[in-house]
Amino acid sequence: MPIVLADHRYGKAENRVVRFRRDTARHEVVDLNVTTTLRGDFADAYLHGDQSKVLPTDSQKNTAFAYAAADGATTVEGYALALARHFVDDVAPVSAARVDVEAYPWTRARVGGVEHDHTWVRSGAEVRTAAAVVSDEGGARVVHLLAGLEDLTLLKSTGSQFRGFLVDEYTTLPETDDRVLATSLEATWRYAPAAVAAGFDVDAAHAAVREALVEQFATLHSLALQQTLWHMGRCALERVPEAVEIRLTAPNKHHVGYDVARFGVPDRGEVFHADDRPYGLIRAVVADDEFPAAPEAWA
Amino acid sequence: MPIVLADHRYGKAENRVVRFRRDTARHEVVDLNVTTTLRGDFADAYLHGDQSKVLPTDSQKNTAFAYAAADGATTVEGYALALARHFVDDVAPVSAARVDVEAYPWTRARVGGVEHDHTWVRSGAEVRTAAAVVSDEGGARVVHLLAGLEDLTLLKSTGSQFRGFLVDEYTTLPETDDRVLATSLEATWRYAPAAVAAGFDVDAAHAAVREALVEQFATLHSLALQQTLWHMGRCALERVPEAVEIRLTAPNKHHVGYDVARFGVPDRGEVFHADDRPYGLIRAVVADDEFPAAPEAWA
Amino acid sequence: MPIVLADHRYGKAENRVVRFRRDTARHEVVDLNVTTTLRGDFADAYLHGDQSKVLPTDSQKNTAFAYAAADGATTVEGYALALARHFVDDVAPVSAARVDVEAYPWTRARVGGVEHDHTWVRSGAEVRTAAAVVSDEGGARVVHLLAGLEDLTLLKSTGSQFRGFLVDEYTTLPETDDRVLATSLEATWRYAPAAVAAGFDVDAAHAAVREALVEQFATLHSLALQQTLWHMGRCALERVPEAVEIRLTAPNKHHVGYDVARFGVPDRGEVFHADDRPYGLIRAVVADDEFPAAPEAWA
Amino acid sequence: MPIVLADHRYGKAENRVVRFRRDTARHEVVDLNVTTTLRGDFADAYLHGDQSKVLPTDSQKNTAFAYAAADGATTVEGYALALARHFVDDVAPVSAARVDVEAYPWTRARVGGVEHDHTWVRSGAEVRTAAAVVSDEGGARVVHLLAGLEDLTLLKSTGSQFRGFLVDEYTTLPETDDRVLATSLEATWRYAPAAVAAGFDVDAAHAAVREALVEQFATLHSLALQQTLWHMGRCALERVPEAVEIRLTAPNKHHVGYDVARFGVPDRGEVFHADDRPYGLIRAVVADDEFPAAPEAWA
Repeated sequence: MPIVLADHRYGKAENRVVRFRRDTARHEVVDLNVTTTLRGDFADAYLHGDQSKVLPTDSQKNTAFAYAAADGATTVEGYALALARHFVDDVAPVSAARVDVEAYPWTRARVGGVEHDHTWVRSGAEVRTAAAVVSDEGGARVVHLLAGLEDLTLLKSTGSQFRGFLVDEYTTLPETDDRVLATSLEATWRYAPAAVAAGFDVDAAHAAVREALVEQFATLHSLALQQTLWHMGRCALERVPEAVEIRLTAPNKHHVGYDVARFGVPDRGEVFHADDRPYGLIRAVVADDEFPAAPEAWA
Repeated sequence: MPIVLADHRYGKAENRVVRFRRDTARHEVVDLNVTTTLRGDFADAYLHGDQSKVLPTDSQKNTAFAYAAADGATTVEGYALALARHFVDDVAPVSAARVDVEAYPWTRARVGGVEHDHTWVRSGAEVRTAAAVVSDEGGARVVHLLAGLEDLTLLKSTGSQFRGFLVDEYTTLPETDDRVLATSLEATWRYAPAAVAAGFDVDAAHAAVREALVEQFATLHSLALQQTLWHMGRCALERVPEAVEIRLTAPNKHHVGYDVARFGVPDRGEVFHADDRPYGLIRAVVADDEFPAAPEAWA
Repeated sequence: MPIVLADHRYGKAENRVVRFRRDTARHEVVDLNVTTTLRGDFADAYLHGDQSKVLPTDSQKNTAFAYAAADGATTVEGYALALARHFVDDVAPVSAARVDVEAYPWTRARVGGVEHDHTWVRSGAEVRTAAAVVSDEGGARVVHLLAGLEDLTLLKSTGSQFRGFLVDEYTTLPETDDRVLATSLEATWRYAPAAVAAGFDVDAAHAAVREALVEQFATLHSLALQQTLWHMGRCALERVPEAVEIRLTAPNKHHVGYDVARFGVPDRGEVFHADDRPYGLIRAVVADDEFPAAPEAWA
Repeated sequence: MPIVLADHRYGKAENRVVRFRRDTARHEVVDLNVTTTLRGDFADAYLHGDQSKVLPTDSQKNTAFAYAAADGATTVEGYALALARHFVDDVAPVSAARVDVEAYPWTRARVGGVEHDHTWVRSGAEVRTAAAVVSDEGGARVVHLLAGLEDLTLLKSTGSQFRGFLVDEYTTLPETDDRVLATSLEATWRYAPAAVAAGFDVDAAHAAVREALVEQFATLHSLALQQTLWHMGRCALERVPEAVEIRLTAPNKHHVGYDVARFGVPDRGEVFHADDRPYGLIRAVVADDEFPAAPEAWA
């Protein structure tokens, strides 16, 4: 029975890097959760316990902090790319590196209506994400850059229906012309390699994608969450030409109308129970098919 | 061995009540997590399994939803008070009721720079809280109203020191003149019964307390988190005369400077590791001592 | 407006202390989450930022680890008492200390049916708790010892009914003669001060309380969760004379029968949906009233 | 810009199915978290909002409960396979279905040393997993069966070293000959299609894989977590011939020695701080390469 090591990778997960800039009185903050993952010539560590090619995960942690200091983490994406390139370029056994970053949002505290110079309030559960994937196998350098967001929670109180669906022997759901629609969106998009090589305003691109996602959720009369997702993805790629593929995962956070007429209260369809589980879970991948797919960017 | 039932209470926890107002094209949303707790003449249910005086928790759930429909939940505090009063007034065995509410913040989605009529984005991890405590034992009606917030996460990159502390044989902490200070604040304050009886703008009061808390955290040069908490509480009570007591719980979310000079990177004190555990945990109760304490409001 | 500091306390929360004993080939492990809380002469730190009487929380952390090393943490309760006594006895401004401990269970790995000497598997979500509360105000030494458990999740598939309850205008719940009963129990009990002073087998006492709780849940035909809790508490105090008060908090984790007859499947009442929220929440305090109450132990 | 729907799937996540068997006095319980995911001819729902081929996720929920009733969920794997086959066989637009199941462990309560007939205690944070993946595109039926476990938390107090690793400019980690090793293992393995078609004792296979994993963790002198994972996977596949591929994900839960000698306490290397973040994260895929890979089983 020829049992083999078919695949492997390792790294340091969830380095909580907080980077300030304090060179003027008006400070800046970048608050990151950084995970590094390396692939390469590490089979001997698994098969024989030979660590000679293994860069300790502790060293990867040190590197993540050192790069945050040196680079300044001016953009999340630039920091991730620099760190991933370093591992591939400077650590011999590494053939591919992936750096995943979650960035937590802070807004300046307001005092007397004025933004404070060095105090912030954590704003939002929403997380901005980025991932840089760099590989160099046999001299063929490949660079992918992903950006995204998690926990963008959206809710609309009308403008959504669900009817005309397939009915089988297990179907009991009534049709509805007017329902609450809510989701907690996870979206990740990939930028065109040429755009990454040329450079572009990653913050503006992120903001434009997010704006497209929110706008379509708000303005499209939804015939199903599936349709809403398609239009969210389509609009994002149309608006931001650097983005060539977007993957959307959306729980359908069910809001169930509560029958208050039983209690003598006029039921105007305004009171709902927000259910926890189960929930629908809808996924869509939308792509600009002039660009080649890049499954290795998503591994 | 005379074993007795010394105390008891029961209720329905975490009713996820979502209340819209849809009477005009511009809808409104109130998103609540409601917990009801009843005290009263329920000993027989414990001692003998006699349910004849026990209002099912399922009925409490129905009531929470019905009141959200009828009352409109125009203010979180008003809804909590109405619900608590109902249980005491209308359910004979109930001598005291407490209604705890968490309110989740939503902001209108913006489309083309304009607020959308019926779509919202969940804003913030911060939760607004309220609790109404109503009792009527022997005809002596007592009403308490608490308000608060949780997970108000604050961070400052300077303006904090910690020195001159007690040193014992287990002390290894160096003094510091300039450190990062961060916390995830939980604050609950109590309004004066007379103000509750007379009525006042609970939303404005909540906003004013929150503003005072943020302002003091930002502007006070902190000699310790203890001192910061005192000034936060003091300022809140000074600004909002209806609030007569405030309880503050503040983890000291440690940010540990990362020594990047080891790696040849200039160390300007700008890169930190955000530690998870352990964390300092500081509590303060600040009160206007012209008003009597009300331990029963906090049970 | 005479605003005052009405109460205060501080400490180090969630020190993750892991203590092995490796003096023989058969090692032992104790895995703790330790929180220290101090009260005393600390008002100046709040009011004036004067730290001269403040033992840093970092020193408290060091102390927790040092005591785990020195004391060996042979019992959780002994360790908590030693640590609490130290703060009161040896740190001048401290007038009262509370040490809360969560202990995580591990069982020895079995290899070929034999217990392994130095490898363990984490067993159970259930947590054992202990708290030592020591105060010495004006020379009056008071020592309280609490023990407990959290997340003891219990389920029975019959032997539970709920009927004969109060019906109001919001009641829609049908009566039932045979339902699923499930809870995730939190229990904390207090030992008699004299027993603590004299010493006793805290591990045996803990096991006996737990056994009583499980046995009553299993064997009592439940007329309501309230009744079940009373008998659980009563039995525990009867079995373990050192325990003189027990506080029980029990969510009623609702299991809702799923109507499968709609789909042509015989409905034998065997398939349920386990609901998340809302849930009933029942509390009981059971006490041996020959012993004085000790509210300060529970603050 | 030819923007296309590149991929899509949808389903119902986290159906909390609890199935008892009560046909004799000795009841049985199966406690599941079931997620169904369908692929197929659903593009029109995304592109045009046409639901005519969309089986509502609500119907999928009903089906999960109905199958639990009809099938009895005698084995987790059998239930998952039956449900996945149903969607592919009986719902025309479905070309592939995946059913993921988490099974939560319960053990019988013991009363007076005897197992109780209808009461259980939740045992362990560890979760047993299974996934059935069935597809039928163009008449080519493919069936995959995965099994696994999550949150198997393992700890050893010796028998682990880490030395001889690669040193770069960011490396500060000292070598160690004797360290604590701990992980919270996630393992998923795939059974050979022929074995699935023929049928075998899935409970025995699961137990044997788990035993192999624990045994190797315990008995192998670890030169690195990588090496430990390889031997865990290798041994599992050797012991259980039906299992042909196993994927292991293992956080290195760091335990950092606490220097108590500073406080005059003899430091015998027995006291550690259990760190939360960051953590090493090691992954390995071990396969029997006589069997073809099946990437579609893992999508």
